Amino acid sequence: MAKKYYSDLGFVSTKTVRLPGFRTSFGYQFPYIDINYLELGTLNENKDNVILIEHALSGNALVSGQDKETGAIGWWEDYVGPGKAIDTNQFYVICSNVIGGCNGSTGPTSINPLTNRPFNMEFPPITIQDMVKAQTLLLDYLEIPKLFAVIGGSMGGMQALVWALEYPEKVHLCIPIATCMAHSAIQIAFNEVGRQAIISDPNWNNGNYTPDKRPEHGLAVARMIGHITYLSAEIMEKKFGRRLQRSPEPSDIFPVFFSVESYLQYQGESFVKRFDPNSYLYITKALDMFDWFYNITNVEEAIQQIKSKFLIISFESDWLYPPEQSKQIVKILKRANKSVTYMNLNTNYGHDSFLIPNPELTTVLRSFLEVEYHTLQQKNQADLYAL
Amino acid sequence: MAKKYYSDLGFVSTKTVRLPGFRTSFGYQFPYIDINYLELGTLNENKDNVILIEHALSGNALVSGQDKETGAIGWWEDYVGPGKAIDTNQFYVICSNVIGGCNGSTGPTSINPLTNRPFNMEFPPITIQDMVKAQTLLLDYLEIPKLFAVIGGSMGGMQALVWALEYPEKVHLCIPIATCMAHSAIQIAFNEVGRQAIISDPNWNNGNYTPDKRPEHGLAVARMIGHITYLSAEIMEKKFGRRLQRSPEPSDIFPVFFSVESYLQYQGESFVKRFDPNSYLYITKALDMFDWFYNITNVEEAIQQIKSKFLIISFESDWLYPPEQSKQIVKILKRANKSVTYMNLNTNYGHDSFLIPNPELTTVLRSFLEVEYHTLQQKNQADLYAL
Repeated sequence: MAKKYYSDLGFVSTKTVRLPGFRTSFGYQFPYIDINYLELGTLNENKDNVILIEHALSGNALVSGQDKETGAIGWWEDYVGPGKAIDTNQFYVICSNVIGGCNGSTGPTSINPLTNRPFNMEFPPITIQDMVKAQTLLLDYLEIPKLFAVIGGSMGGMQALVWALEYPEKVHLCIPIATCMAHSAIQIAFNEVGRQAIISDPNWNNGNYTPDKRPEHGLAVARMIGHITYLSAEIMEKKFGRRLQRSPEPSDIFPVFFSVESYLQYQGESFVKRFDPNSYLYITKALDMFDWFYNITNVEEAIQQIKSKFLIISFESDWLYPPEQSKQIVKILKRANKSVTYMNLNTNYGHDSFLIPNPELTTVLRSFLEVEYHTLQQKNQADLYAL
Repeated sequence: MAKKYYSDLGFVSTKTVRLPGFRTSFGYQFPYIDINYLELGTLNENKDNVILIEHALSGNALVSGQDKETGAIGWWEDYVGPGKAIDTNQFYVICSNVIGGCNGSTGPTSINPLTNRPFNMEFPPITIQDMVKAQTLLLDYLEIPKLFAVIGGSMGGMQALVWALEYPEKVHLCIPIATCMAHSAIQIAFNEVGRQAIISDPNWNNGNYTPDKRPEHGLAVARMIGHITYLSAEIMEKKFGRRLQRSPEPSDIFPVFFSVESYLQYQGESFVKRFDPNSYLYITKALDMFDWFYNITNVEEAIQQIKSKFLIISFESDWLYPPEQSKQIVKILKRANKSVTYMNLNTNYGHDSFLIPNPELTTVLRSFLEVEYHTLQQKNQADLYAL
């Protein structure tokens, strides 16, 4: 068991469940899928206090708490827990690893039951819609009919949007953060360079690498590119500027070694320990292919069917998923007379702003959830009296 | 000889000259250096019509015209030629490949006279100041006492700034375009990822690769990253958006292939044919280390010594060398009461704006050069009468 670090939630454990398979957007039939997920808080009797949290590209089911086995701390520890913005004393929180991922859910490293070998690049291409589909199967298994809220940043926001559009009866609140309806050319471009870094690493070997010879250099470079795009130029300047990491050492190829170089190298090296290169290919491709209206013939009608209220959040300093993209979502929903609250927060952390402790984001999330939950309960109460 | 393509200047040929060595900023003594350069137009009797053009990271001496041997077209063909913004009917234009480069000037691929092997990573670290120092030796050789103007974009702008500061008697006009006084953290970060892509390519082999086994994948990835930063998100969206390059082919690893992916792959592949990976390391490091005031103890005094007039140009859509960085240069010069004209042009091509045909940039350059040249000649005439 891991050493106790610190988390208001203490030790937690994810579970993995085998669920019935489904047909992906591109027509592949999974015989079954495994989904790794975490539950926090307690499901109430009415089952109306469920919040589904969606993770981003490099996330996993461990949204908060400390993993009993690995000792890892949840990626949204600052926002999810007792008394926090997403209050586990009040809400029953679920977070699951996406399919295509590498943290317990079926993905390229899983054994393909048809061949008894890891899928590797025989894994089918997946879409954000497929990720959500897998989550609906998890909720069926957990016997949860409806979500009070679905919340996610970046790729998590795309999943939240898909929930609201494709499963309108199941979503009361939809909170997409720092996201978009479809990747722009520059967003695709950054991901493509990451993919090229991986597949041009000789160790990639058409995806058939072994655990002791993975394309780690390629994945590290991909992660470094990502890291630059997650931060704002302003915060990088504040954190690193032109500071030197240390005096040159004989092994250095140049006489100057900047702190920002050291930081990026460290980010790349630590990422390869916890992420699978093929997963990186599949998930970034899912991001690039994402189109909220994929396979939807009548967009206007589909939007009309949406029943959830929206809280849409963007960050002024986010140049990877700029506020303009969130505003486009707001516009489309408002045009259809949907209930939308939009906040563009003035943090300077860039795209990473949703992951970093921020009193404003905390307040916005907390108060929106509280007010809406209170309203919902009053309505339920009234419905009860009306019976 | 190459097939005639089209250039107002017709066929041109660069020359390579062996010049006395010099001591670099970091203390390495070159026994000698080779400099590859191009001359366009005619030096006048007074030798007051010399314009030195400085190239950027991936540039070379072929600023304009068509190379007689390779058929390549100059990188600033749109701005340099008879009747163009930088008019070769009026001015004698010189452009030389930087030291550390791979297009005819001494660089990592050159033979180290001390070992009779290519320098590779035994090449000394070089600075922007060293690049300029090498150019002063070229001008001595050409018996040119003074530059009417020194002009350059991006890394070329840094060289122009160094000329004005370190050789104040030799520069009449200084025209730095889309540049900065020192790289910021995010500028260093993008270059560092490119370098990591190269040195983590197994073919890099500590820099001792052979011509048939170069770290081409690493260099291609580095170039792709660069290309994204040279364009604006807006122009990428206009050029590519989410357009597909073609229907999926059996060899594709994913069922969707975007045009922007194809574009980046092409840019990467074509770059490796014309650029040396070690050169890429040295030159990007020179960019990152660049500090206009490097080795200058009394900055205020040094700035006071500057004699040149400045035309400083930035582009609103340039997020790699944002206008803010040009404004910092303007501020420092204005505070010292130097003559500065500053233009922030509203093109939407991002950093690449200075390379792309643009009527506004053409007009600004042409008129500034014309007016200043006319003024200079009137002054010379007056000086003559006064004798």
